[in-house]
Amino acid sequence: MYTYTQLKNFTNQVFIKMGCPGAEADIASKTLVSADLRGVDSHGVARLSDYVRLWEADRINPTPDIKIAHESPSTAVVDGDAGLGLVVGPKAMRIAMKKADQVGTGWVSVKNSNHFGIAGYHAMLALDEDMIGISMTNASPLVAPTWSKEPLLGTNPIAVAIPAGEEPAFVADFATTTAAYGKLEILQREKKDAPLGWIQDKDGHPSTNSFELKNGGSLLPLGSDREHGSHKGYCLGSIVDIFSAVLSGASYGPWVRPFVSFLPVADNMPGEGIGHFLGALRVDAFQPKEHFKSQMDHWIKRFRSATPVDGQKSVLVPGDPERMIAEERINTGFDILKPVENDLKALAEKFEIEF
Amino acid sequence: MYTYTQLKNFTNQVFIKMGCPGAEADIASKTLVSADLRGVDSHGVARLSDYVRLWEADRINPTPDIKIAHESPSTAVVDGDAGLGLVVGPKAMRIAMKKADQVGTGWVSVKNSNHFGIAGYHAMLALDEDMIGISMTNASPLVAPTWSKEPLLGTNPIAVAIPAGEEPAFVADFATTTAAYGKLEILQREKKDAPLGWIQDKDGHPSTNSFELKNGGSLLPLGSDREHGSHKGYCLGSIVDIFSAVLSGASYGPWVRPFVSFLPVADNMPGEGIGHFLGALRVDAFQPKEHFKSQMDHWIKRFRSATPVDGQKSVLVPGDPERMIAEERINTGFDILKPVENDLKALAEKFEIEF
Repeated sequence: MYTYTQLKNFTNQVFIKMGCPGAEADIASKTLVSADLRGVDSHGVARLSDYVRLWEADRINPTPDIKIAHESPSTAVVDGDAGLGLVVGPKAMRIAMKKADQVGTGWVSVKNSNHFGIAGYHAMLALDEDMIGISMTNASPLVAPTWSKEPLLGTNPIAVAIPAGEEPAFVADFATTTAAYGKLEILQREKKDAPLGWIQDKDGHPSTNSFELKNGGSLLPLGSDREHGSHKGYCLGSIVDIFSAVLSGASYGPWVRPFVSFLPVADNMPGEGIGHFLGALRVDAFQPKEHFKSQMDHWIKRFRSATPVDGQKSVLVPGDPERMIAEERINTGFDILKPVENDLKALAEKFEIEF
Repeated sequence: MYTYTQLKNFTNQVFIKMGCPGAEADIASKTLVSADLRGVDSHGVARLSDYVRLWEADRINPTPDIKIAHESPSTAVVDGDAGLGLVVGPKAMRIAMKKADQVGTGWVSVKNSNHFGIAGYHAMLALDEDMIGISMTNASPLVAPTWSKEPLLGTNPIAVAIPAGEEPAFVADFATTTAAYGKLEILQREKKDAPLGWIQDKDGHPSTNSFELKNGGSLLPLGSDREHGSHKGYCLGSIVDIFSAVLSGASYGPWVRPFVSFLPVADNMPGEGIGHFLGALRVDAFQPKEHFKSQMDHWIKRFRSATPVDGQKSVLVPGDPERMIAEERINTGFDILKPVENDLKALAEKFEIEF
């Protein structure tokens, strides 16, 4: 078992060794470990060695000059200068929040970035300022549009965080696929099949083989198949791709660079790096703050007290499961899977730091 | 067969008879018939008699004073004054577009409105000004959150329209449920069962009975069940509800008034009428207009030319099916179902106008 502070400090030291300035290593490690904290283990320290490998392949700039490339009172395009998305994301979100402070809302599309951890973390930054936060990112192509054999979209997550009063905030954070890639990785580790509706094979036929992506298969958009609305998941993934990358000038669709360093980069890239889209809405640009929050409390209480189906204790409000995991892990610590632990130990050795 | 002009003119006359001023009857009829034009027959003239009944029940104000209740440079809350959503929606969208013109984006949350037809129509108004349009609305509760027996959300659609250059615009417009209610109505008329995954019965068990909602059943959020991501559809429907109604001061969740006039209105309504949320983003607040449009063309061409699965001619881009139907119907006219035709004839008789 590890404590939050142990994981955060170790991650911080690794980013320092990569050449990140202290303040940015702090932001990056907070962002990364927030995934472990909220139970999204696939996006936390399990990915630390991937970031290191991308840096070794010269695809991550540890001292980026993150700057506004274009702006209007409520919008900006931010150039991440090939920095860690874990740093670029929060910095871009702060720009969106500053604009929201000035004109009610702020919307920032980011190019030339890298993976930014969990989408929810960035959206939640807005909560402290009584703003609604929105966060999305494109990612390398693993998802086939409805009726396509080819994967053209990433799992392109959307997060929306909405402040409440006495109740904990509403926090939605989800991949626009039937199942997140992390869920597939769990099945792969356990050598188990996936449920029908998560994956198709290279010819577009339904598959339950959790290793199917290695054979040219794809993840399916939220909805699974046309009869169950996969065209809607395809719409959502496309909107995330266009807002994150066409609006910013990042690469999009099948041209998004793979996260892993050993896969080749596509030719004729239409843009730079991967893209994010971040939004902030000041609640009191719509309603008096306290009124809005008490209405959100009313909304949340009504949904949480809905009559549950047999076998379930209660109906959950978006954000409940992750918050409960975070409360538990802060108290009792983190279990780290053996292969991840070995990865971290190897990093400790490489950089001559303690783990 | 009827022509677009026949349906539009007849609808216009009905709204005039309800007491709408000429210019507003024109807006309302254009909005309503856009649904028939784009093949969403459930939301077009098939609903005209429902609007008339709501007006007869004093729940629609034909001469509303639609006004801004609160605003910031990029936001507004609009009070629809119990007007037709078919008029309130486009007027609120124009306010969002004016703000986008001034500060890059505009975001309008609307209270005290009624059903506004298809979400896509409002979003598409932005296209002519080289803006991205966003439109959503809440609706009366038919949808059960994941693990809930009770329906607490409407089918709460989301529409996003994105301009392109040579290619037709990208237009996503979808209910945040597995299947739209209109699809269920088609099955009911044909006395057919629904696919598993669309509906649950009053105890929360899967059902294929297309009449199940009359027995206390519910529609299911996009994703169908927890294993296939219904919590994501539940998140989406909730976000639409909160943006449309908590931000504006409309009723939300289970308190949204039923569309039909004969159902009772809930006690202790937390807000006024139903709510919409409309957004406009000026493309050149992010990228030079022509550059953005040529990148969208590139995106669209790549997706449309993806290798299709066996049995499908091609991969579609969001908006393709509705556009193809609209092109066909403008040329060859509209088939109206017998019961809808009878409804319209009854309206013609009631108001002494020609059909």
